[in-house]
Amino acid sequence: MQANDMEVFEQWESEVRGYCRIYPTVFKSASNARQVDEAGKSYIDFFAGAGVLNFGHNNERMKKAIIEFLNDDGIAHNLDMSTSTKRDFMEAFIETIQKPRDWNYKMQFTGPTGTNAVEAALKLARRVTGRTTVIAFTHGFHGMTLGSLACTANSYFRNAAGVPLDHVQRFPFGKSLQEMSAIYSDPSSGYEPPAAVLVEPIQAEGGVNVATKEWLQELQAFAQSRGALFILDDIQAGCGRTGSYFSFDGMGLDPDIITLAKGIGGFGTPLAMNLVKPEHDKHWSPGEHTGTFRGQGISFVAGREAMRYFEDDSFLNDVKRKGEMMEERLNKIASAHGEGFEVRGRGMMQGLDTKDGAVAKEIIGRCFKAGLLVGGCGPAGRVIKLIPPLTIPDADLEEGLDILEKSTQSLAEAA
Amino acid sequence: MQANDMEVFEQWESEVRGYCRIYPTVFKSASNARQVDEAGKSYIDFFAGAGVLNFGHNNERMKKAIIEFLNDDGIAHNLDMSTSTKRDFMEAFIETIQKPRDWNYKMQFTGPTGTNAVEAALKLARRVTGRTTVIAFTHGFHGMTLGSLACTANSYFRNAAGVPLDHVQRFPFGKSLQEMSAIYSDPSSGYEPPAAVLVEPIQAEGGVNVATKEWLQELQAFAQSRGALFILDDIQAGCGRTGSYFSFDGMGLDPDIITLAKGIGGFGTPLAMNLVKPEHDKHWSPGEHTGTFRGQGISFVAGREAMRYFEDDSFLNDVKRKGEMMEERLNKIASAHGEGFEVRGRGMMQGLDTKDGAVAKEIIGRCFKAGLLVGGCGPAGRVIKLIPPLTIPDADLEEGLDILEKSTQSLAEAA
Amino acid sequence: MQANDMEVFEQWESEVRGYCRIYPTVFKSASNARQVDEAGKSYIDFFAGAGVLNFGHNNERMKKAIIEFLNDDGIAHNLDMSTSTKRDFMEAFIETIQKPRDWNYKMQFTGPTGTNAVEAALKLARRVTGRTTVIAFTHGFHGMTLGSLACTANSYFRNAAGVPLDHVQRFPFGKSLQEMSAIYSDPSSGYEPPAAVLVEPIQAEGGVNVATKEWLQELQAFAQSRGALFILDDIQAGCGRTGSYFSFDGMGLDPDIITLAKGIGGFGTPLAMNLVKPEHDKHWSPGEHTGTFRGQGISFVAGREAMRYFEDDSFLNDVKRKGEMMEERLNKIASAHGEGFEVRGRGMMQGLDTKDGAVAKEIIGRCFKAGLLVGGCGPAGRVIKLIPPLTIPDADLEEGLDILEKSTQSLAEAA
Amino acid sequence: MQANDMEVFEQWESEVRGYCRIYPTVFKSASNARQVDEAGKSYIDFFAGAGVLNFGHNNERMKKAIIEFLNDDGIAHNLDMSTSTKRDFMEAFIETIQKPRDWNYKMQFTGPTGTNAVEAALKLARRVTGRTTVIAFTHGFHGMTLGSLACTANSYFRNAAGVPLDHVQRFPFGKSLQEMSAIYSDPSSGYEPPAAVLVEPIQAEGGVNVATKEWLQELQAFAQSRGALFILDDIQAGCGRTGSYFSFDGMGLDPDIITLAKGIGGFGTPLAMNLVKPEHDKHWSPGEHTGTFRGQGISFVAGREAMRYFEDDSFLNDVKRKGEMMEERLNKIASAHGEGFEVRGRGMMQGLDTKDGAVAKEIIGRCFKAGLLVGGCGPAGRVIKLIPPLTIPDADLEEGLDILEKSTQSLAEAA
Repeated sequence: MQANDMEVFEQWESEVRGYCRIYPTVFKSASNARQVDEAGKSYIDFFAGAGVLNFGHNNERMKKAIIEFLNDDGIAHNLDMSTSTKRDFMEAFIETIQKPRDWNYKMQFTGPTGTNAVEAALKLARRVTGRTTVIAFTHGFHGMTLGSLACTANSYFRNAAGVPLDHVQRFPFGKSLQEMSAIYSDPSSGYEPPAAVLVEPIQAEGGVNVATKEWLQELQAFAQSRGALFILDDIQAGCGRTGSYFSFDGMGLDPDIITLAKGIGGFGTPLAMNLVKPEHDKHWSPGEHTGTFRGQGISFVAGREAMRYFEDDSFLNDVKRKGEMMEERLNKIASAHGEGFEVRGRGMMQGLDTKDGAVAKEIIGRCFKAGLLVGGCGPAGRVIKLIPPLTIPDADLEEGLDILEKSTQSLAEAA
Repeated sequence: MQANDMEVFEQWESEVRGYCRIYPTVFKSASNARQVDEAGKSYIDFFAGAGVLNFGHNNERMKKAIIEFLNDDGIAHNLDMSTSTKRDFMEAFIETIQKPRDWNYKMQFTGPTGTNAVEAALKLARRVTGRTTVIAFTHGFHGMTLGSLACTANSYFRNAAGVPLDHVQRFPFGKSLQEMSAIYSDPSSGYEPPAAVLVEPIQAEGGVNVATKEWLQELQAFAQSRGALFILDDIQAGCGRTGSYFSFDGMGLDPDIITLAKGIGGFGTPLAMNLVKPEHDKHWSPGEHTGTFRGQGISFVAGREAMRYFEDDSFLNDVKRKGEMMEERLNKIASAHGEGFEVRGRGMMQGLDTKDGAVAKEIIGRCFKAGLLVGGCGPAGRVIKLIPPLTIPDADLEEGLDILEKSTQSLAEAA
Repeated sequence: MQANDMEVFEQWESEVRGYCRIYPTVFKSASNARQVDEAGKSYIDFFAGAGVLNFGHNNERMKKAIIEFLNDDGIAHNLDMSTSTKRDFMEAFIETIQKPRDWNYKMQFTGPTGTNAVEAALKLARRVTGRTTVIAFTHGFHGMTLGSLACTANSYFRNAAGVPLDHVQRFPFGKSLQEMSAIYSDPSSGYEPPAAVLVEPIQAEGGVNVATKEWLQELQAFAQSRGALFILDDIQAGCGRTGSYFSFDGMGLDPDIITLAKGIGGFGTPLAMNLVKPEHDKHWSPGEHTGTFRGQGISFVAGREAMRYFEDDSFLNDVKRKGEMMEERLNKIASAHGEGFEVRGRGMMQGLDTKDGAVAKEIIGRCFKAGLLVGGCGPAGRVIKLIPPLTIPDADLEEGLDILEKSTQSLAEAA
Repeated sequence: MQANDMEVFEQWESEVRGYCRIYPTVFKSASNARQVDEAGKSYIDFFAGAGVLNFGHNNERMKKAIIEFLNDDGIAHNLDMSTSTKRDFMEAFIETIQKPRDWNYKMQFTGPTGTNAVEAALKLARRVTGRTTVIAFTHGFHGMTLGSLACTANSYFRNAAGVPLDHVQRFPFGKSLQEMSAIYSDPSSGYEPPAAVLVEPIQAEGGVNVATKEWLQELQAFAQSRGALFILDDIQAGCGRTGSYFSFDGMGLDPDIITLAKGIGGFGTPLAMNLVKPEHDKHWSPGEHTGTFRGQGISFVAGREAMRYFEDDSFLNDVKRKGEMMEERLNKIASAHGEGFEVRGRGMMQGLDTKDGAVAKEIIGRCFKAGLLVGGCGPAGRVIKLIPPLTIPDADLEEGLDILEKSTQSLAEAA
């Protein structure tokens, strides 16, 4: 087998594979914000496993803890049986995240994918309210299984369903809610009373669209007034990504359910968890929403380590600082470009909206060649999304931004 | 924190939790077929993570390989990028499983849960055929997300959906297919032409119901004659469980899609993979069915180790031998009982149908107290399912069966 | 305009038109069992407006009553306001039909089509039970609007829906109910508890399939045991057609809802009426199921006249006598043919199943040329359905049967 | 039986009955704009059978033609066979309505109810486009069967469905279409491409809401740009009601389908007809949308007579004149009231929006007592709708308006 030999993938892996087409090489190892391929080429990672690897590849503290756990014959797989490891994780989360916020959310471990967490949240909202319709938003992304896919907006994903995606009513993200409110207070509007309002405070896949505090507050007030559960999907933007633990921290929000996945497991191993208000949670009967991989020891161990980053403000302050650095550089790139490029984001989730999918694709390709992994999102993939590990060294961050700047310039010059 | 302190779970974990109520203790470590709780009590594990831990807890070979992989900064999370580790897994699977069967299935790594694999299979079947309705069976279990839940039969799970579960037509598992065939060849029957026939060769959750070779062949012929894809869900019964790698090996079947999860990752970490005929797979466009945790390095490493068990017949022969031992003992228990107990199964998946959910629950409780973990399945949980690690030592297997026998006896005597 | 000039229809009427293609002429007048076209050719009518004209075209008594009503400025259209005419109709129906049976069904006048009556019945059953799924049968025909179309079996009609037809579970008509009963008493069967069982005692459009008394009784017992409403659709087979007023008279059945239309208006003008048990009817709120043409004065007047036919047994005895005559002649035709022709029916609804749509079509075409209107039904239209006006003179009946016999013979000889 | 004896209705008619509760008497006869009850009390009819009786009760010309037709043994019921009577109707419609507009719509006679016409239009739009979702509007009313009910907005009607009403996307009637346009041109909006846009140019049941020419033009342009059929539901507002034959005449619109019912049959007997562009109509196969009562001789005869009203402008000019009279009087009533009453309408469909359902109900009750039949519509029935026969004598129209004025005054004084 030669280095970077992709023949096995081309011959044997499903045509559905995607990222390996954008990054056509074979990766062999990774550390913090760097991935190295079989030929030894090192790439700076501004993609971080689509927002999973907030604490970098092979985070040393976590790796150490996992190896120790393995050597101690810790329980790697426990469904929803009780284990010491799970208790440690829960206690850390309660102490570090819930108590400082005066929260008492019940923690529900679902199947270890974001889509599964969303499905569980929707089931519960429908159960609690006795209603079926969920309000979701344009450009929203909530997963690929039929329940969450119905809430996902992108037609490319929706068209793969093969069945109608029902029971969801959609409204424009971030736009005035006046008309929506009017509609739902009118019994002749033809809109069914909603079971839930499901929204991402920041739409990551949708194009790094940032909702304002005011809009989210108004939305929450609307949900409460209509007897609907207010569900925040913080799967990609949560776990420290935006400079606070939750992307909506400090907005005075009081969601009924918060869905978490991606970064919660710390190391890149799967975990998903919903935070559910006790008054809703009590509507569950035991085992109604099951799943084989709900209890993942390695993810609990690493996720517990991740909690340590949030014990004081230093880490998040550093995230904010790096986020500002990113924003500044992106604004410079955007203004240099002068063709309507737009920068959006919060903390270390930043998007460069090129307004043109082909342009973004070309830039991403040039970045890859120059040693930077970066991904597209938004309509036609026109937004370049920057979500490096929060732990990225400044030097790597700078170097990555340099590559992005040059790739953008070179494209402009080639045009 | 005291040993076995469950207060954190009781206070903070969702009411949906299930297994921790059946096994009310806190497990601390596990090795092969034994789990140990915080108080040091050792339990023989006849449950194996609901069929995940075919190779035992903390399988030594796998543990070693994982630690090595971690120390080498292997790539723990890679979405569907190409990695050396993933290629190793794929090559081992191709060599060990596909080539000896003269197969050329495409391998699709889906979100790492069984339900996600089923959702992907259903999407593709609907895409390929342009039809919507899927045929599924009574007592079938295929997952909890809306697409697969529609195929799951159990009303307890279905009632949690909160929306109608459409586009599935159900028929009795294992019963004559004559009427079904007649219906589908009649254009005035009101049955939509099916996109797929989805079936478990052995229904595990449904109560260890074993389909005959003849029935499965007839079902496949039906699917082919109606232009529907024939999908075998081997998520729980596959990966060596029944004494062959697939539960349907040797039946002359030629499924269009095979869904795999649970045991495929070897160590208890999540992985799911569909085997898809190339002529169907080509209907996928890149990234149409995505998922954050599709590429799991640890699971690839351990899953690659798992393949070594199937390089020659010795392991599977041992599985068959132990399976026979189990069956024999169960038959003895059943006949001693004399109240209509029934034994069903194949290889190391064996079920003792007590015909009464309360009886099964009581036996399971007595087993737990006596140091045996065993679970219920089937209607009202009336079937005690025995799925110990395939690697269980004979001594543990015998001891576990002894406990089961005594618990059953003691219940009978108490009655 | 020349006699039988069809150009206007060909140029201006929708391509969806059907019967005018089978009977390619322009009809000008009609009396009892005869229609005359513009060229003066007289046809014996064995089709009777698809089972509407039980009392013949331009029934003299009804015509007289309608003209009187018109001259008195009776109320032709009254929505569901109360009118003298409507009260007369209701009283006659109560006296003639309900009281002798000791019934106290509430009478609900729906939009004046069979499909609308079925939609109303389904709404009520779902309201009463709080369930969604309706059990219907292969070869059933219940109408063309989406609610009733979901219950209709024929794929030609269903394919026109353009949306999935959900919330209906279908079983084979007339076949053993054992498996169905088993399924619904099993909580792991995956079948939703039914809101209603909807069935035609005799399937007319489905091919003149006659359910036995025993099967219907068993079906009713099943519905009752599962808390589902038992709904009999007697739209085509009711109103005297089978030799009793209802097609299921004398079977000891006690349906929750009976749907009526077609013959109930007597003269061929629209009317539809559900008979609903008071304990179910009380679940309606005023105006929840409305419709512009619910109250039709002309139909009430003629429908009231129709009631006079049922004041004693003489009319129905005559229907039985003619039905036997029809059956006898059909059996003779069938046995002469010797190619698997089959005769089915009750009273004056008789079907000759030719087992081949092309054969039936050819016979129907030959009959038309020879002056007999007769229609096809069943799979691929292979069953020739004989539903002449109940008032047809013996001479016309004999002549029509002669034509059918000759057309069948001539086809056989041509083959 | 005493005059106005309602006992039969109370005891035997379904609880779903509505209008007879608002007008608690028994009507015996009717002529033009007057109904007389059994006690001899005469009522002026401003309701006209919910917009059916555009040409008055027992229109003399139509009555004469119907009696002649009956005496000639015309064909009262013909499904979709060709008859002389039907041809006469079609020719009159082509000459009087289609040719002057240079139209060549195909005429499809559906089951004789508005809801059935809408169901047929939706089926065809879905067939033509291969899409499922239909755009409909708040406050829209399109019928009670499941397909059209999904397009109807009112929650009172929708709640009776008992199943989810899917495949419809709703937008606010008459409001800016900018956001809607933006949404549908964005592939990540999560809105399915629409099969059709279904709209009433004037919403009658919805509260006499009048769309502007500009809005309808913009809506049509939107539909055309998205490949959706533009369907105008003119069932209540068409057939001369607004001072032109169609309510949208003169707006430069070019709908793909126009649905007609109510007034098209002239006399109050059922008829429904869709006008369908030939390029869409050709997608129908014969008999795909059937219905027993599609061909109604009496309705064809009276409907043909109705056409004579539109042979020159005199009748419609008179409608406009009376409409202005109504509007003037209503404005006077509204301004006298001074509590936010609002007048809306066009031609002889005028609404007095009292903004309060209880107020409207009280006024309607007082009108009834004073000898005027008038109905409510809109949210909570707060809009009093005036739709007298177009043929109402000026004296009756004035007298009716006087009663309305006095009833409104008396209520104000009582308050």
